[in-house]
Amino acid sequence: MSEAASSYALAVDVGGTKIEAALVTAAGEVVQASRSRVPTGRAITQAGLEQAATDAATRALAHLDPGARVVGVGVGSAGPLDLQRGVVAPVNMPDAAGAGFAHLEAVASAPVALALDGTCIALAEHRFGAARGARNALALVVSTGVGGGLIIDGQPVRGKSGNAGHVGQVRIEPRGDGAIDAGTVEQIASGPHIVRWAQSQGWEGATGEDLARDAAAGLPVARAAVERSAFAVGTAIANVSTLLDLDVAVIAGGFSGVSPDYIPLVAAAVREQAMLPYAATVEVRPSGLDGAGPLVGAAVLAFDGLA
Amino acid sequence: MSEAASSYALAVDVGGTKIEAALVTAAGEVVQASRSRVPTGRAITQAGLEQAATDAATRALAHLDPGARVVGVGVGSAGPLDLQRGVVAPVNMPDAAGAGFAHLEAVASAPVALALDGTCIALAEHRFGAARGARNALALVVSTGVGGGLIIDGQPVRGKSGNAGHVGQVRIEPRGDGAIDAGTVEQIASGPHIVRWAQSQGWEGATGEDLARDAAAGLPVARAAVERSAFAVGTAIANVSTLLDLDVAVIAGGFSGVSPDYIPLVAAAVREQAMLPYAATVEVRPSGLDGAGPLVGAAVLAFDGLA
Repeated sequence: MSEAASSYALAVDVGGTKIEAALVTAAGEVVQASRSRVPTGRAITQAGLEQAATDAATRALAHLDPGARVVGVGVGSAGPLDLQRGVVAPVNMPDAAGAGFAHLEAVASAPVALALDGTCIALAEHRFGAARGARNALALVVSTGVGGGLIIDGQPVRGKSGNAGHVGQVRIEPRGDGAIDAGTVEQIASGPHIVRWAQSQGWEGATGEDLARDAAAGLPVARAAVERSAFAVGTAIANVSTLLDLDVAVIAGGFSGVSPDYIPLVAAAVREQAMLPYAATVEVRPSGLDGAGPLVGAAVLAFDGLA
Repeated sequence: MSEAASSYALAVDVGGTKIEAALVTAAGEVVQASRSRVPTGRAITQAGLEQAATDAATRALAHLDPGARVVGVGVGSAGPLDLQRGVVAPVNMPDAAGAGFAHLEAVASAPVALALDGTCIALAEHRFGAARGARNALALVVSTGVGGGLIIDGQPVRGKSGNAGHVGQVRIEPRGDGAIDAGTVEQIASGPHIVRWAQSQGWEGATGEDLARDAAAGLPVARAAVERSAFAVGTAIANVSTLLDLDVAVIAGGFSGVSPDYIPLVAAAVREQAMLPYAATVEVRPSGLDGAGPLVGAAVLAFDGLA
């Protein structure tokens, strides 16, 4: 076995329901046997989140072949985070604010790099997925939330504190008298919000899977819900493309599979909503990574040694 | 006189009412005597715009001291443009689409660099103005239109075709059944649009100057108009800061002087509209360049040799 083939990144994806860790090669291949999940959840504490990361990392590392080595640990986390302090403060894990992952250096005997999960997904799509070769790309995840990450001039964008890419918290409709997230992309387009919207229109289903089934069966309210999500995501992409003059927008996340034509619906909304012709030319593509984006991107972070 | 002091950029600012050209030093000082304006206007043709650029450039160059030299020509233009083709297609000069400025190389005997006017303003504020030292900055111009430019990781952002920065065409309210620009920042916040909005509320003034006077005098509808513009601009900045995690947003343009508290009103709107704490920490500052941003930025473009 060559030196390169026996070098791995330990990739860690910190999310609101679980932490997942895995060994990943420099070619972006996830060692499936090493994938290890530890639950998190809304009530998890700072110490709890840090311990969960240790547990997931330790389990993944147990699958390291004798003679193989870990060259770096990449951690992608739900945001927001503070890269200057090296800590996270995820919206959906309020008691975990202040958690950090520097302790994984001792666990893996390798340096640790931290980034927003959306940044990791953008890195993964740019290196191995649907944004290969693009100089300016947005990766957007539509799932229980809406997240994202940016590549500009071929480089990942982190911003002042590491939070660049939070496209779900961009406001596309007036807040009015609503809560602070009223009118944001996530509040309109995410799976749970669209399910709630459909219910408000009289739909009797309960989950994104129900919605997918009823939209496929032609139930008008379910179809309208799918279109509503795609239109909001398309509006967001039109705005980002107007601002950044993108080559490519990649859409990942479970809810983007709610309908076979979700991506074409988003693309049509981009063309309808972009005021300037250049912004409408952004290519809208499905993820090329089959759900592995967060881990693969965390591995890119580790191999590239990004702090 | 030193070599450096006798080296100038020929800066050219291409706008919807005029082309302005001037000699500018590497220190960002505009040679006032050299400032030369040639009218443009909505009906100008491609050939007319190119000739106007030649005329403005020729007049500015006539002020070049014997022994001094022009090291480069920087052209900042109203957008959109197509940097790959080296041409512009300004929204407000439809018959000038396809105009280019490569011919100025022969006029000035120096290489020509072209960028969006907003990019030039961002370059100017970053090098010499209110965004000095910032790694991530938005420059925003509120005038007859709303334009902008971006600095990310210390570098100007151009995007696929040179159009990054068009913050005025970002949509912050639903388009509904409106025109393609309905709900965009410019359509809500620019001087002429705010004047029209105030008139729709029964105000009897006609100009931005009238509005400034009536707002200062405490006329409620004029004051509401000022606040409406500032709120839309603040919403736009909150969105861009959410997406890019900015250090600084700089506000330039004549309409930003409509009220002494316009900048504080914008800053308050940013804090109200930003959902995530990091996005609300962007510093909102007035331009540090006293209206010279477009020329100074075009000069930076020329000195830096950006294509």
